[in-house]
Amino acid sequence: MIASLVNGAPGNRVSILDRGLQFGDGLFETLAVNRNQPCLWQAHMRRLETGCARLGIAMPAAEILKQESRQLLGDLEQAVLKITITRGSSMRGYAPADGPVTRILSLFSWDGPATGSVPVSISSWRLGLNPSLAGLKHLNRLEQVMARRALPPNAREAILMDIDDRVVEGIAANLFLQQDERLLTPRINDCGVAGVVRQLILDTAADMGVKVEEAHVDLDALLAADGLYLSSSLLGIRPVKTILGEDWRPSVPMHPLLQEVQSRIFQA
Amino acid sequence: MIASLVNGAPGNRVSILDRGLQFGDGLFETLAVNRNQPCLWQAHMRRLETGCARLGIAMPAAEILKQESRQLLGDLEQAVLKITITRGSSMRGYAPADGPVTRILSLFSWDGPATGSVPVSISSWRLGLNPSLAGLKHLNRLEQVMARRALPPNAREAILMDIDDRVVEGIAANLFLQQDERLLTPRINDCGVAGVVRQLILDTAADMGVKVEEAHVDLDALLAADGLYLSSSLLGIRPVKTILGEDWRPSVPMHPLLQEVQSRIFQA
Repeated sequence: MIASLVNGAPGNRVSILDRGLQFGDGLFETLAVNRNQPCLWQAHMRRLETGCARLGIAMPAAEILKQESRQLLGDLEQAVLKITITRGSSMRGYAPADGPVTRILSLFSWDGPATGSVPVSISSWRLGLNPSLAGLKHLNRLEQVMARRALPPNAREAILMDIDDRVVEGIAANLFLQQDERLLTPRINDCGVAGVVRQLILDTAADMGVKVEEAHVDLDALLAADGLYLSSSLLGIRPVKTILGEDWRPSVPMHPLLQEVQSRIFQA
Repeated sequence: MIASLVNGAPGNRVSILDRGLQFGDGLFETLAVNRNQPCLWQAHMRRLETGCARLGIAMPAAEILKQESRQLLGDLEQAVLKITITRGSSMRGYAPADGPVTRILSLFSWDGPATGSVPVSISSWRLGLNPSLAGLKHLNRLEQVMARRALPPNAREAILMDIDDRVVEGIAANLFLQQDERLLTPRINDCGVAGVVRQLILDTAADMGVKVEEAHVDLDALLAADGLYLSSSLLGIRPVKTILGEDWRPSVPMHPLLQEVQSRIFQA
């Protein structure tokens, strides 16, 4: 870790009474920093605001987060910036906190946007179904931790299905399937994270008049697709050409919509 | 909070890189302390050990936890002792940690075992289904936080159902239903916490030759029961006689099994 601020002050510690630690009672955002700028800043702030509203956490002013991000970044060209917001501290027990929220900004080294295919496995870990919390990038991430632990050494990501055997996402990325001219992404109504790049793809599709279906996807459909892509703030949009250590698909040209979005992600 | 130890040293702070904060990657136990003794110590250690094994976290030696508990307690007669174990610290991202686990012991004031009925509401929050993590007292507790936030002022606990409308548990307690001579408790295969008192009731039932059914329970069955009880390490076994602010049942005598277990819980 390069540097961090806790509630605006240099530091790297929080109280053991912080509800982020006690209950995972908070949210986080992970931003790529490229050319000294946090990428997709507005989109990350929108998602954080939506998450805070759903959980009833008071969103810190985006202006403060922006200013603290600038302070942390200094003149660093490339980095990963993580912003964590928790409901603050309270005694043990689930009763509501009445104190201020905790905001944590931390900066990590990063080599910048990479290109090329990401080798994936197919996880045997199954995501639970939790419509009330689905989509949120909250701090309850044990499922991702467990799926990541099970990742074989020859894979960098994994296809995650839910307990009904529906394909949902990667461990830290969303999925897009290309089938002829069609683009599909798994629905995330019951579980999964509403990735910022996923949303950017959906919004840009609407602007460009391209249809992207949010669909129930099973593993057979995924494996039969012409193209498969992972999306995240750090990966950008990256093709999958190796599954379970085996070559999977010959290269298909990336759909123009995905090319367009990819060209914007790391433009800070 | 009266006092706390972090990895054996007096202190009340952890790193922002602790995976308990980053991901809820850990477990906790909440013990009643009565007459200067942590109650049901062995049962709590067994559950912690089971949880650590399921998550692949190295369980600290129970002897160390015992010694540190004694150190914290001093000659305090009554308290709540919370033991939190996390997978330790690591950089951002879900990749496994290779450092030591974090152990946090904290002590809170407590008035000792209470008696009498607990007024409950019926929560509109629905628990998700997550068989892989069900039963564990892990740190991913946003569901309980959200259900607790929605608790009306005239209730101390709430009946929680899952997304399939099955009754599961209270917010911080398990449920037992008494129907004629029968005792039932909701299954916790898909969600819910395997409470230490719940397990003690099941184990004692086997010893006494009493049958307790782990069953799917719907709200109608719950409301039609002769008796309803909440169980937890801090509540003990407590009857419910008020639901949604209304008197619900005339008193029925507590089943002998529940009486027997109740008499043991706060015997340290």
